[in-house]
Amino acid sequence: MNFNKNIGEGNLAEKMCITVMSGSIDRLIGMAVLTSAAVSMDMEVEIFLQLWGVYAFKKDVIKQNMNLSEFNELGEKVASRLKELKIPPWYEMLREAKETGRVKIYACSAAASIWNVKKEDLEFVDEIIGAGEWIEKMSDAKINLFI
Amino acid sequence: MNFNKNIGEGNLAEKMCITVMSGSIDRLIGMAVLTSAAVSMDMEVEIFLQLWGVYAFKKDVIKQNMNLSEFNELGEKVASRLKELKIPPWYEMLREAKETGRVKIYACSAAASIWNVKKEDLEFVDEIIGAGEWIEKMSDAKINLFI
Amino acid sequence: MNFNKNIGEGNLAEKMCITVMSGSIDRLIGMAVLTSAAVSMDMEVEIFLQLWGVYAFKKDVIKQNMNLSEFNELGEKVASRLKELKIPPWYEMLREAKETGRVKIYACSAAASIWNVKKEDLEFVDEIIGAGEWIEKMSDAKINLFI
Repeated sequence: MNFNKNIGEGNLAEKMCITVMSGSIDRLIGMAVLTSAAVSMDMEVEIFLQLWGVYAFKKDVIKQNMNLSEFNELGEKVASRLKELKIPPWYEMLREAKETGRVKIYACSAAASIWNVKKEDLEFVDEIIGAGEWIEKMSDAKINLFI
Repeated sequence: MNFNKNIGEGNLAEKMCITVMSGSIDRLIGMAVLTSAAVSMDMEVEIFLQLWGVYAFKKDVIKQNMNLSEFNELGEKVASRLKELKIPPWYEMLREAKETGRVKIYACSAAASIWNVKKEDLEFVDEIIGAGEWIEKMSDAKINLFI
Repeated sequence: MNFNKNIGEGNLAEKMCITVMSGSIDRLIGMAVLTSAAVSMDMEVEIFLQLWGVYAFKKDVIKQNMNLSEFNELGEKVASRLKELKIPPWYEMLREAKETGRVKIYACSAAASIWNVKKEDLEFVDEIIGAGEWIEKMSDAKINLFI
């Protein structure tokens, strides 16, 4: 469970843990950019989905979701720039990062109950775990973020 | 002030610090779930309330507050599921976690001035402190999160 | 690049890194208060602007921006209290913190492209960098926060 065992002190960071409460695509873009950058630096990334995070990873939601956490009035402008610049959607960035084998994604068991979903109903999710297990994982991380 | 003095290296995490800017109940639920899990793993938790955090802990607000940070249109659905699953409100989770004696809650002095409140006007708050003191507390933590 | 080299173990925290996704002034106030407190404790602070963060630091936006991330209905009340208490706007707090020389502000290169801005179009920004470089900076930090 501990990825870091063989990484000596003074090496570049070992593990980043991101707790994802938000299901808004602006914050998910930020999460995907940081995840993608971290794996390209040979870090491990672990992600824990809470309430809206689980919702946003539902197979029937993930591609349709256009929710922004702020500045709704600028959403169209940003969307058209993302298209012009050929920046892929957050879930494509995450898919690519996951292909390295260095990204693990967990859904919170309580949040999974709220949405009444199983692992199979969620994209990218490796396991459904309790918050206690997540605390243990965060304790090992060099970088912790809450999105 | 340093809870960690006697905890050797390699032990499970010692202290989690959560800076609570948000006063929205979705994010407060996430905070309460993590706090509750952390104390059950024998961690200490320290919480610092900023602007909306102080507002949400006001005795005349805490139980009435229904604000969500995102996905307002799904609020009713989530509320009814929480009820069905008998998941207690965030402040009840926090009350229980606090009974372990391992949770300390601070309100930012500047934010307390903005709301014109004293410690007695706020639920669960142990002390009103300045941001400098909070920085010092965060420096000791194994896990830092900003909600 | 590593500010911490000469700071021995056991000393007060060395560096705080804040990833700023949000462009809302409530969350930016929280960021500025923590930054200001950290430099007053002799810490270094590094800030990385993502999507809305870059937007909020645009020279043609920074002073006009009144966006709140939540509780819009309380915005006027808070604004008038801030004025009464003579609490300066977040960007003035940041300007003062930056004068100590212990605050570095970076804009994410992808976000800068989205807004089609250069360093000169942004207030306070020292450099435009990629997310990989930011991961490296976060790895060195004692405190990491995502706003």
